[in-house]
Amino acid sequence: MQLATRDASTDYLIAPDPAAPRLTRAVEGVDHEGNRTRISVVEERPLTIFLNAQEIVTAMTIGDYPEYLALGFLRNQGMLGPEEVVLGVDYDEELETVVVRTDGQTSYEEKLKKKTRTSGCAVGTVFGDMMEGLEGVTLPQVEVRTSDLYALASLINRTPSLYLEAGAIHGTVLCQGDRPLVYMEDVGRHNAVDKIAGWMLSEGVSAGDKLLYTTGRLTSEMVIKTAMMGIPVLASRSGFTAWGVEIARQVGLTLIGRMRGKRFVCLSGEERVLRDADPEAVGDEDARHRRKSARE
Amino acid sequence: MQLATRDASTDYLIAPDPAAPRLTRAVEGVDHEGNRTRISVVEERPLTIFLNAQEIVTAMTIGDYPEYLALGFLRNQGMLGPEEVVLGVDYDEELETVVVRTDGQTSYEEKLKKKTRTSGCAVGTVFGDMMEGLEGVTLPQVEVRTSDLYALASLINRTPSLYLEAGAIHGTVLCQGDRPLVYMEDVGRHNAVDKIAGWMLSEGVSAGDKLLYTTGRLTSEMVIKTAMMGIPVLASRSGFTAWGVEIARQVGLTLIGRMRGKRFVCLSGEERVLRDADPEAVGDEDARHRRKSARE
Repeated sequence: MQLATRDASTDYLIAPDPAAPRLTRAVEGVDHEGNRTRISVVEERPLTIFLNAQEIVTAMTIGDYPEYLALGFLRNQGMLGPEEVVLGVDYDEELETVVVRTDGQTSYEEKLKKKTRTSGCAVGTVFGDMMEGLEGVTLPQVEVRTSDLYALASLINRTPSLYLEAGAIHGTVLCQGDRPLVYMEDVGRHNAVDKIAGWMLSEGVSAGDKLLYTTGRLTSEMVIKTAMMGIPVLASRSGFTAWGVEIARQVGLTLIGRMRGKRFVCLSGEERVLRDADPEAVGDEDARHRRKSARE
Repeated sequence: MQLATRDASTDYLIAPDPAAPRLTRAVEGVDHEGNRTRISVVEERPLTIFLNAQEIVTAMTIGDYPEYLALGFLRNQGMLGPEEVVLGVDYDEELETVVVRTDGQTSYEEKLKKKTRTSGCAVGTVFGDMMEGLEGVTLPQVEVRTSDLYALASLINRTPSLYLEAGAIHGTVLCQGDRPLVYMEDVGRHNAVDKIAGWMLSEGVSAGDKLLYTTGRLTSEMVIKTAMMGIPVLASRSGFTAWGVEIARQVGLTLIGRMRGKRFVCLSGEERVLRDADPEAVGDEDARHRRKSARE
């Protein structure tokens, strides 16, 4: 457990920036005793994502890393295949738009044109595409050390973040072994995952040797996104949904939830969990971290 | 504070049904000590909502009250105006669809036909419609008693629920004075709100004298939905987003967040909060309820 004593803010390739002026705002209010108070709240902005000339979706986001969010969203939705050549990603802060330009029209645009004739909203379509996209997915069967799980949870919980600064935000962290690499936050937990996917795509980062940690629940959509990214392990402080577990078992994703102090539950891939740490040495969570429990 | 000692499960018109076999599933797993364990996890099902012949959206839901969910979603999105006559709501469990049939084609369907030519996904469109829909909204300026807030929070936290049974789920409660009336839960907090909106629509329940309590964050979408429903007060255990606060102030919605034990923060409508309870008599939350803190 040597990592648990290391400075949590070191070693990240991308860490949260709780001090960034654009991401939070001080808002005047009154507390339970009637005293005026100023609290820091997270921003929430619309960002409309285009694939070439095609408007795809308007996401609500805190607004950092819009290019990664757009790239990751399109990839995780199966709208941007591995074969597509991305010519550029243009973010316009004023228009609150980001345009992903590819080499010619993607197959998705054609598909969408067909589907929008019969579907009023692409949400259903998009979800269908995601399930389709999963059919090809096979994840590498890698071992997960409980010593790494405990070390990561401890480091991530102590990392300065927008959550600790302002709350009401989700975090997702791309990890390798016992090291957290990229820690993204957003008002929607899916955005945080998509920003990590966009970063991996831009940097050409391998997925098979990584672990994804999320503060959010292990829903079908989180499991599908993680599998689409090719990451074989998904861990969370939060709980599960039945369909999330089902899909994880189908694609061979190791799924670990309810991680609080020494406690966790593994509902998929237990045979790949290597128990090299003594839970008693980790102990239970203190109240401060218990507060970080999340419904989503 | 007399309510705080009353049995939490009494008096609801609709209360959660944690024992309902269709809503949760026992899943086999292994815990941190390597022991086999069975935990109860919530179900998550796709439900495709149609407005007449028009497919609108596929929502992920636990699957209770599909008719209320469909009606409430369409109303809260501004797709089903107050003037529309609903002829019927048909749920097909096998097809996982629910069709809302109206007297003739709604204006929304025409609108959608136009917009889908230029918009690949109605999500952006839908969000635009919601903001449009708000322009006409003026909420009654009603008083909020802190004694009611404390009584409601205490009752709701002690009400048997899927959250207490299985976790990983959101709750929203329609309240009047110091009494919780309808307590809906769902994997997405928006679904829980929409189910309440659908119930109100079906039962012809007035909104001006109600309060909405949610376990989720006070995001722009939650604030907009509450305002669309005509409910003047929105309270939550969770935190705020800046845009949520902004919209609440625009439409005159009283917004109270971070409700934990005696603590809360009011960021909109403070002048309508009547402080008739002594916070010290309420005290701080115990660890069990502190665990219910939510990021979303």
